[in-house]
Amino acid sequence: MHIRIINPNTTASMTRVIEQAARALAGADTHISATQPEAGPVSIESHFDEAVSAVGVAEEVLKGEREGGIDAYIVACFGDPGLLAARELTRAPVIGIAEAGFHLATLISTRFSIVTTLGRTGIIAEHLLEQYGFRHHCRRIRAAEIPVLDLEHDPDAAFKRIVAECCRARDEDGIGAIVLGCGGMANLTEAISREVGLPVVEGVGAALKLAESLVGLGLQTSKHGDLDYPRPKPFTGKFAELSELRLPPGH
Amino acid sequence: MHIRIINPNTTASMTRVIEQAARALAGADTHISATQPEAGPVSIESHFDEAVSAVGVAEEVLKGEREGGIDAYIVACFGDPGLLAARELTRAPVIGIAEAGFHLATLISTRFSIVTTLGRTGIIAEHLLEQYGFRHHCRRIRAAEIPVLDLEHDPDAAFKRIVAECCRARDEDGIGAIVLGCGGMANLTEAISREVGLPVVEGVGAALKLAESLVGLGLQTSKHGDLDYPRPKPFTGKFAELSELRLPPGH
Amino acid sequence: MHIRIINPNTTASMTRVIEQAARALAGADTHISATQPEAGPVSIESHFDEAVSAVGVAEEVLKGEREGGIDAYIVACFGDPGLLAARELTRAPVIGIAEAGFHLATLISTRFSIVTTLGRTGIIAEHLLEQYGFRHHCRRIRAAEIPVLDLEHDPDAAFKRIVAECCRARDEDGIGAIVLGCGGMANLTEAISREVGLPVVEGVGAALKLAESLVGLGLQTSKHGDLDYPRPKPFTGKFAELSELRLPPGH
Amino acid sequence: MHIRIINPNTTASMTRVIEQAARALAGADTHISATQPEAGPVSIESHFDEAVSAVGVAEEVLKGEREGGIDAYIVACFGDPGLLAARELTRAPVIGIAEAGFHLATLISTRFSIVTTLGRTGIIAEHLLEQYGFRHHCRRIRAAEIPVLDLEHDPDAAFKRIVAECCRARDEDGIGAIVLGCGGMANLTEAISREVGLPVVEGVGAALKLAESLVGLGLQTSKHGDLDYPRPKPFTGKFAELSELRLPPGH
Amino acid sequence: MHIRIINPNTTASMTRVIEQAARALAGADTHISATQPEAGPVSIESHFDEAVSAVGVAEEVLKGEREGGIDAYIVACFGDPGLLAARELTRAPVIGIAEAGFHLATLISTRFSIVTTLGRTGIIAEHLLEQYGFRHHCRRIRAAEIPVLDLEHDPDAAFKRIVAECCRARDEDGIGAIVLGCGGMANLTEAISREVGLPVVEGVGAALKLAESLVGLGLQTSKHGDLDYPRPKPFTGKFAELSELRLPPGH
Amino acid sequence: MHIRIINPNTTASMTRVIEQAARALAGADTHISATQPEAGPVSIESHFDEAVSAVGVAEEVLKGEREGGIDAYIVACFGDPGLLAARELTRAPVIGIAEAGFHLATLISTRFSIVTTLGRTGIIAEHLLEQYGFRHHCRRIRAAEIPVLDLEHDPDAAFKRIVAECCRARDEDGIGAIVLGCGGMANLTEAISREVGLPVVEGVGAALKLAESLVGLGLQTSKHGDLDYPRPKPFTGKFAELSELRLPPGH
Repeated sequence: MHIRIINPNTTASMTRVIEQAARALAGADTHISATQPEAGPVSIESHFDEAVSAVGVAEEVLKGEREGGIDAYIVACFGDPGLLAARELTRAPVIGIAEAGFHLATLISTRFSIVTTLGRTGIIAEHLLEQYGFRHHCRRIRAAEIPVLDLEHDPDAAFKRIVAECCRARDEDGIGAIVLGCGGMANLTEAISREVGLPVVEGVGAALKLAESLVGLGLQTSKHGDLDYPRPKPFTGKFAELSELRLPPGH
Repeated sequence: MHIRIINPNTTASMTRVIEQAARALAGADTHISATQPEAGPVSIESHFDEAVSAVGVAEEVLKGEREGGIDAYIVACFGDPGLLAARELTRAPVIGIAEAGFHLATLISTRFSIVTTLGRTGIIAEHLLEQYGFRHHCRRIRAAEIPVLDLEHDPDAAFKRIVAECCRARDEDGIGAIVLGCGGMANLTEAISREVGLPVVEGVGAALKLAESLVGLGLQTSKHGDLDYPRPKPFTGKFAELSELRLPPGH
Repeated sequence: MHIRIINPNTTASMTRVIEQAARALAGADTHISATQPEAGPVSIESHFDEAVSAVGVAEEVLKGEREGGIDAYIVACFGDPGLLAARELTRAPVIGIAEAGFHLATLISTRFSIVTTLGRTGIIAEHLLEQYGFRHHCRRIRAAEIPVLDLEHDPDAAFKRIVAECCRARDEDGIGAIVLGCGGMANLTEAISREVGLPVVEGVGAALKLAESLVGLGLQTSKHGDLDYPRPKPFTGKFAELSELRLPPGH
Repeated sequence: MHIRIINPNTTASMTRVIEQAARALAGADTHISATQPEAGPVSIESHFDEAVSAVGVAEEVLKGEREGGIDAYIVACFGDPGLLAARELTRAPVIGIAEAGFHLATLISTRFSIVTTLGRTGIIAEHLLEQYGFRHHCRRIRAAEIPVLDLEHDPDAAFKRIVAECCRARDEDGIGAIVLGCGGMANLTEAISREVGLPVVEGVGAALKLAESLVGLGLQTSKHGDLDYPRPKPFTGKFAELSELRLPPGH
Repeated sequence: MHIRIINPNTTASMTRVIEQAARALAGADTHISATQPEAGPVSIESHFDEAVSAVGVAEEVLKGEREGGIDAYIVACFGDPGLLAARELTRAPVIGIAEAGFHLATLISTRFSIVTTLGRTGIIAEHLLEQYGFRHHCRRIRAAEIPVLDLEHDPDAAFKRIVAECCRARDEDGIGAIVLGCGGMANLTEAISREVGLPVVEGVGAALKLAESLVGLGLQTSKHGDLDYPRPKPFTGKFAELSELRLPPGH
Repeated sequence: MHIRIINPNTTASMTRVIEQAARALAGADTHISATQPEAGPVSIESHFDEAVSAVGVAEEVLKGEREGGIDAYIVACFGDPGLLAARELTRAPVIGIAEAGFHLATLISTRFSIVTTLGRTGIIAEHLLEQYGFRHHCRRIRAAEIPVLDLEHDPDAAFKRIVAECCRARDEDGIGAIVLGCGGMANLTEAISREVGLPVVEGVGAALKLAESLVGLGLQTSKHGDLDYPRPKPFTGKFAELSELRLPPGH
């Protein structure tokens, strides 16, 4: 089973962190590969960053489909950028790390809180909670107010602020679990969990397991209805190569 | 990894069907065992049946905890009877097959329909959709109007009616996937899916994979807050033995 | 008019408290009887306790139906355990004290808060509010953090803590009424209300009056659709006697 | 116990019908009186009619308060016109017949439909369902397309159309009960119910019983917060006499 | 283009304030006229005041229709009293200042708070948010606890309290904009906005622009379905003249 | 006042249609300019197309900001692609045509239906309705099943199918207005409206008027909180030039 992790930002070192975290959790039969878009933002901290990264995600899925042999994709940014677009481009399951974190958190607790990086991205999580149906399962969206790349540049300070915010969530929010709100925290989960003493759900691992689950069950993205392959059509300018969607035979 | 499947009704032959279906889907390292309560209804087709079966589910979890070495439990009836009670009784994850089916269906489609056995149980599914957050992801709850045990007694007729209802769902509901609404359909998934040509999500397999996922990630039922072990207390009459919850040290 | 109150826990002294409170409020023509299950937990403070007590509630309804002449049933625990199961077993109306409290509170205020015993049961109330439609009418669920039986064992301390929490609700929540979240508080309503100076809605009285209302109007639990009598079937083990549902003629 | 029924339209013959229906259902100790506003529309079939009738309702409550000795008020039009305004003007409970019908219907069924007079008033019921929390309990709002006064002028034809619509609701909507959507149907409930074979909830009787319930429990409209007496102030023109709210001492 | 502003209270000086604020914002081709009902409360601070003022609003629309040449109406009280009734009485668009403020606030921010006059009217805003669909866009309803007419009588103190509450909203609520909750604040918007440093949306200006928008697009209140002209009928007493709705030809 | 319309697809002829439709509706003082991205899909009929077009929208806003003097932007595709990203990039208001259509439709009707091009894009509209708060105001999303560019290539057939679907909406959905679900229908509004006899709300005109409204009121996109300018950062590859966001002084 080959699972391709797409880090939607272009920071290769973060891709490596995510890849390692995933490999440590992958099943014996699971091959993990990880990429990031050739073009896009070095981190995703706004709707604008997210919109640009969504194209990169889609392009990485198309690249994966041309390669062949990929059984599932993971979109490893907490805003799930380009998720539905990516699903249109492949029969393979595509899992976002935000949705994955939410889903698993509801299986081990009745209510959870999110601890994310910057407060301004809270609205992205809020919109996802609404779309996915988890609005009432999430008590509160909290931010440690750390720029994403500080997770790499100043990991100790970042860790401390995240733990502090998680502890506040534990003590004030009436919750049973915490969802970490950034793919870049994937390598910190265990340490955070130890400090906080609550189940801490991290999206990369969660998405990996959900991807393995769907592949294991033979469940693929539905091509009946609104996630069917896009109708092929001309794209112009720097997106011209997207005109040549090579759809599977019969489409 | 040892996963215990609890068939909440007392029909052992159905337990075997469910167990076989699960074994066929289990990971290489997963040991599956399956049980049913000693006491309870032979099938679950009403709130009343469900209420009685919930006690059986809890007792089977307690039995499993006394045995030890069980990493996760599955509650294999589409109403998820006793799910939150079961979660209180163990640190191991406990997954219901209705919730499992809903969660996975939303990962491969934007909207799904449910095809269940008897129309009168639709309200149970409806309440679960509300509680879990999937009210708007489910377009319609449909019933093939088959008593649960007819899945065993008259499997061909049952199969035809289920497929017919699934086809109506596919053609009329604007959906991308179907969730099968009975644990007793676990062995039919593949055949139904072939006939219908849509992703068909069956709860036992879905729950198995979610259980494997949580165990694989080291995520356990939260004991912080409202799913903590119940306060020990006397139970009377035929429930007297429930007084002796042996809680883990430190509780 | 004969109204049977079922105290879902097995503490007979609490049954007496509830019965007395109900008698003091009953109409001139209303005969009140009160029972508790032969088997079950001495108090209900968790999903687990509730699941077990639901069977007791159902059995008490069946016993009542065999006795005959009962016009309505009340389920006197704030989690409304077994409510829908009970409704399936009789044409008589069955009222839960949580739903009753919520319904009446919305008739005399626009928003209310709940003051219950233990914080861990808040999620039960939350799920009921969602199912019944009152999520937005309830501003906050508060707990006095009193074990249920302390209402009997240490009534003065319990009273003080409840009043203190009610006063906080009154001063902080922007509400017009308080719903008391435990059947065991039935005898305290008047005293609490005097201390707090707000309408305080207690579920036993509320359920009694709703039961009298339905009986007075000749309205019975609908047997059209999903609350119809359960299909008779074998039950095994300690539940074997449930196999012999004696349904009314024509069923 | 003195309950004052306010028919919000000015058709005295309809007031009599409502009064008679209520008397037939009232408790032994309940004195029923019924009035209609001196000024307003002869029937209520639009937002406009309803807005005008709301003033009449408020004025009738003020009149009742000046009379004294009234324990509860009922607003006997299915749009519950002026309900919250009326509640501000008195400590006595005030019950609307739409809310009353909805509340009781949810106690004897899991889902209900409404059968009302004119389709154009469906939106009024829809807004009330949203405000009261019963949006998901009501499967469908149906109209027999009968002008309100035809209930008096052509009762046989009206009865047939209502029964026909109720039967469609029973057969198509997946419901357990029907709520009748007009005070003028109060005398038809029993006959409709017989024809349809489902519990039929009529609002006047429902409101009467809820009013008796609240009075019996000593529960009054909360004067803490947003239903407190209005701040006295000048009213001009034909509403000038409303300037002289005689509030209870201490206000 | 002639837009008629209806101040639902009878305080002519407040009508002038509103009219001036509107004129300062009106398009070059927009003629503004402003009126208030002949009869009604001098300010609107309760459900009761609102119910009475709704009739005044309807009567002012009828007066406007008799005058002719009016292209749109604005209901300039934050509770939008009589809005749907007014819409039934004319083909011209009718805009409420609460809805207008909410609509525009969502176009320039993701979440807003409301700052209104008296806390007791918060429930009115809450009900409107629910009906209009903006429940989740509004983080919090805040009150400066100023009686409406104090905006005229003690404008400096009122201004300070409003600004203070707006600053609390800005600092605590996680919002991007504030909606002012009273027509009488129409002349303060700019000054408040300067003090607070956030976009401040005031309803009179918002409604004016929405009215100009609809007229500019040739969009009129739909007469298909539930906002059609009311069925003509007798009104009695002081509302007798409402019997003579002069509907447009063809109705 | 200079309003820039961004057609998110790259079909210049469609940009011209939209521009003309807007000019015909613009205020006397409004200067309209219209552009389309240099790179992107020729039409938008899937999540994938939409994700790519969102970058084009953002780039066009950045281009507009460099030009200067633009008072508001309109995103003229019914999925509102890139709307929140665009809002982050400018203080000028940015209006999507889907949101604009929804907002205005609720001001002239209580319930509306959408008639769009392809059924597969219905889910996009559904998600927007949820996010914007209009889920319950929209009765039904209908598709004429016309590829977007057929609006240009086979306008007569397209027109007939749209009108036919609008008539079905009018007759079956219980609505007061129709929202047209494609920017390419902007020149057809009047003709459709004539055929259907209902208010037909078209998004380009609606957005134009909302943009004029906000500019007229001096209301700008909030830079307090989550729509603030994005944090500047490196972008790589074909998006490298996005690294040089020239933010306004002080940022």
